[in-house]
Amino acid sequence: METISQNKAYGGVQGVYRHRSATTGTDMTFSVYVPPHEEGARLPVLWYLSGLTCTHANVTDKGEYRRACAEHGIIFVAPDTSPRGDDVPDDDAWDFGQGAGFYVDATQDPWSANFRMRSYVEDELPALIAREFAVADMSRQGITGHSMGGHGALTIALRNPGRFRSVSAFAPIVSPLNCPWGEKALGGYLGSDRAAWMPYDACALIADGARLDALLVDQGDADAFLREQLKPELLQQACEAAGIPLTLRMQRGYDHSYYFIATFMADHIAWAAERLR
Amino acid sequence: METISQNKAYGGVQGVYRHRSATTGTDMTFSVYVPPHEEGARLPVLWYLSGLTCTHANVTDKGEYRRACAEHGIIFVAPDTSPRGDDVPDDDAWDFGQGAGFYVDATQDPWSANFRMRSYVEDELPALIAREFAVADMSRQGITGHSMGGHGALTIALRNPGRFRSVSAFAPIVSPLNCPWGEKALGGYLGSDRAAWMPYDACALIADGARLDALLVDQGDADAFLREQLKPELLQQACEAAGIPLTLRMQRGYDHSYYFIATFMADHIAWAAERLR
Repeated sequence: METISQNKAYGGVQGVYRHRSATTGTDMTFSVYVPPHEEGARLPVLWYLSGLTCTHANVTDKGEYRRACAEHGIIFVAPDTSPRGDDVPDDDAWDFGQGAGFYVDATQDPWSANFRMRSYVEDELPALIAREFAVADMSRQGITGHSMGGHGALTIALRNPGRFRSVSAFAPIVSPLNCPWGEKALGGYLGSDRAAWMPYDACALIADGARLDALLVDQGDADAFLREQLKPELLQQACEAAGIPLTLRMQRGYDHSYYFIATFMADHIAWAAERLR
Repeated sequence: METISQNKAYGGVQGVYRHRSATTGTDMTFSVYVPPHEEGARLPVLWYLSGLTCTHANVTDKGEYRRACAEHGIIFVAPDTSPRGDDVPDDDAWDFGQGAGFYVDATQDPWSANFRMRSYVEDELPALIAREFAVADMSRQGITGHSMGGHGALTIALRNPGRFRSVSAFAPIVSPLNCPWGEKALGGYLGSDRAAWMPYDACALIADGARLDALLVDQGDADAFLREQLKPELLQQACEAAGIPLTLRMQRGYDHSYYFIATFMADHIAWAAERLR
């Protein structure tokens, strides 16, 4: 693992790192904020998965998470959203290919060689964090994310029961089976057999018996993607049917941007802190 | 004035606007955050002047000021750092020409036609804000800034006694007469007669009798520009000799980046709020 930058912030260190990923076959960049702590302390880890077009840098620049992470003593990890590079397949669209990994392990050519963001985020990167950051207490993890990253957070948590003590999301894609973004991405990465999409659909996973102890979701009601792509009502129905306690907060006047995310970031970190203590 | 974007953030509105400037002869872009407020309320205004290479966007994206501005009810205005455009003179260097206006009114060719950031920030933009934002109470203004923008904040406040109830700076250039950045920029914009530089040198203005009621300065001790360019000790000596109460905080381990600025932004807004109440 190579250090790209380290800057002191809110008493801790915001780092950006790069490593060669065996899973994606590419270099991968990610950011880690380690808050101020006593020597020898071990701190819980909050994963943040980003949305379409983003790298680690969007939330690192605009997410305004460091203040709350310093206050609560939480490590914040932000991976990239796909493999990248001139040798990596891509698509002209902004919602498919590089920047749009959708947290799946692709099975279709030409994507299957590199687009393995499920395994990268579930397995390889956590192992790297555990190895490289002695301060990280991997027995206390939480996960959150935005939009496509909200979809990633929900599906990874639902598929790995007991691993995340805290789960939340900002304006998540709740059912790729039922929205144009999902149909395009999962169809492209996984093929036309929709049964193969089920492990990547939060609502389908819940209907299939997967459970969470609790879930916080913030959603702006002025979000341009609300009705066609995000459809929080599907998650609400799935959680109600399954008895999952969902706190769904419709936030009046907020859109899909990092202005929305930053406004409610401290609430999500406090939600995680309560459960990671 | 044209609205480029408006996004709800922390209960208020982060806007980005563009207007045709008579002072610079160019379009100018700036950002204004208006916090949540009662209808008919009038709120104080805090000016933030940015550093070399920056536009309004750097602090708008990375400055983390909205939370504290919402809490204290303060409007936050961030101008650009120079005129810009294909028709505007420029220089290959990052510390001269576009992105490096130094808050002076240039007298030298080819800069004097457009590079009039002193008049733009002192006169034209405040008049525009007063006209376009009824919520802005221009009888209660504060000013702050970073690096070159700290220099701008200090010199504008010192030249306009009674106008700013609150003055602070992050890692300011305190004496352009005594650092390479200043010699290059003021020499280029104002010519070789150093007497013409005096109104643009905070330490020289103080030595000449200009006063501030109080001043807060944060400076990282790991700032790569500390010893050659910033030299806070010169400001300290000038303030001591003049009896200006300076709170100079050397912040251990902090560099010159927005990670440093964001960490202490809430302190500067609280400092302003106390004086703008």
